[in-house]
Amino acid sequence: MDRLIERILAMKNPTVAGLDPKLDYIPAAVREAAYAEYGRTFEGAAAALLRFNKGLIDALCDIVPAVKPQAAYYEMYGWQGMRTLQETIAYAKEKGMYVITDGKRNDIGATMEAYAAAHLGATDIEGEAYPAFDSDALTVNGYLGTDGIAPLLAQCKAREKAIFVLVKTSNPSSGELQDLPLADGMTVYERMGRMCEQWGQEQVGRYGYSAVGAVVGATYPEMLTELRQKLPHTFFLIPGYGAQGGGAEGLRGGFDERGLGGIVNSSRAIMCAWKKEGCDDFKAAARREALRMREDILRVLPGLGR
Amino acid sequence: MDRLIERILAMKNPTVAGLDPKLDYIPAAVREAAYAEYGRTFEGAAAALLRFNKGLIDALCDIVPAVKPQAAYYEMYGWQGMRTLQETIAYAKEKGMYVITDGKRNDIGATMEAYAAAHLGATDIEGEAYPAFDSDALTVNGYLGTDGIAPLLAQCKAREKAIFVLVKTSNPSSGELQDLPLADGMTVYERMGRMCEQWGQEQVGRYGYSAVGAVVGATYPEMLTELRQKLPHTFFLIPGYGAQGGGAEGLRGGFDERGLGGIVNSSRAIMCAWKKEGCDDFKAAARREALRMREDILRVLPGLGR
Repeated sequence: MDRLIERILAMKNPTVAGLDPKLDYIPAAVREAAYAEYGRTFEGAAAALLRFNKGLIDALCDIVPAVKPQAAYYEMYGWQGMRTLQETIAYAKEKGMYVITDGKRNDIGATMEAYAAAHLGATDIEGEAYPAFDSDALTVNGYLGTDGIAPLLAQCKAREKAIFVLVKTSNPSSGELQDLPLADGMTVYERMGRMCEQWGQEQVGRYGYSAVGAVVGATYPEMLTELRQKLPHTFFLIPGYGAQGGGAEGLRGGFDERGLGGIVNSSRAIMCAWKKEGCDDFKAAARREALRMREDILRVLPGLGR
Repeated sequence: MDRLIERILAMKNPTVAGLDPKLDYIPAAVREAAYAEYGRTFEGAAAALLRFNKGLIDALCDIVPAVKPQAAYYEMYGWQGMRTLQETIAYAKEKGMYVITDGKRNDIGATMEAYAAAHLGATDIEGEAYPAFDSDALTVNGYLGTDGIAPLLAQCKAREKAIFVLVKTSNPSSGELQDLPLADGMTVYERMGRMCEQWGQEQVGRYGYSAVGAVVGATYPEMLTELRQKLPHTFFLIPGYGAQGGGAEGLRGGFDERGLGGIVNSSRAIMCAWKKEGCDDFKAAARREALRMREDILRVLPGLGR
């Protein structure tokens, strides 16, 4: 997690821009140019997404430390969409950004090795190692327990990568399972959080946070505060700020006194800033929104802003 | 689920062949031919996987009702691997097989719509609908609760598709979270199972099983039996037979008196039958193993074998 934290410190900005591009988030001129070249097909749509993403990355790479492409919005355009995901990750890394692939992958151990190779490591072809998606971090689901996490820990260790395990998600129904009290009095989400502390214990970095982070929604500020206290070595990826309704005030409890301990995601507010502003320059509008977001969040994190 | 059950009945075979192709499961001659054409690259590997899968599908399509490609083993070959996944699904459907994509996808509602479009529905490009992976069924993880499942239910209803939610997985560490007792005395896996019953209640088909199935491992036969009794409308996808150690005897409890209620997966034993037999014809060996597996399982399911 150190590489991410260092970028956050250098930019005084604990935010990540979600790249969840729907076609109607993309200005018509960008879409039409891609269709003219490749047709109104998966090829054309994938080309439009890539141009939009590259524009956003260009506009944000010197002020925002990280991007988080959401795999679903690429998979829906078939393999052409997955190619755009791969190209987006490569472009963002080329521009110095930290890349978190939001895939929420999960499986039994043997299969998780394949996901770990796909997203954080490299794939062996007859003795040669080829990286596939090669992100800096991946979101994962821990429902299957330790042997579904172990192959990821190996990649984290070998390649300075990180994972974020779903603990308390930002959506309205997250409590149906996650908030249930266990027989020992702990909630399911707290138990999952404690498993993250355990999984990460051998890979704690110089800021006190391990390679195993947790996804904790901004939409549940009390639980965010509770988990920050109970999980001192677990860095948080915090969705639900802005579009999903969570405000900056509620974020404070997710951070430590240095203003570290979390990174806040915003997707739609940044991608669609041009729509809200009524401005066709989506890059300039995204940059203005990212700066506004940084300012809004630093207001509640004086330790980092200093 | 009716479409799957009808194929099981027609073939008197409650099994699904997992397509989790690692390169070293593929005979050297098949690999080398693909490399000669496309190089020792993702292109070459993806071509080898596709040829191997097509051979298996040809060998199995008149005796095995379904295939289950595991997404991880395609993602690890980048977008070229995902193209092979898409082509494998299309080929299996063309040959009349029922296709379950094992992706264990999960996310919040808005994003789950994208996954549902990607894997079960179709993607909208400027008003036209294009199917992407277009399987018959998808495995999913229910940790996020109802709003992460609802978009899938809509596709199930509109297109006669199905989902399988992880309930009690086959791996050694599945109990770390899934077996924990809740304050009300129920285990986490039972609660997840009861959520499946609820999610499926409006889409129960003519055999009494809903469009919302559950993944329950053969490696835990007592829990398989318990869940069959507690979840009368939930069809089971049962991994862990054979290679993972579960035997046919332990499967019995997962089925109803008609011999319905579940489909048993075998991946490695079928794909690698040629290795075990020391026979280079992987297709003939896979077919022999599939027939052996059917016989082994029907032995404990007299209701279906009749």
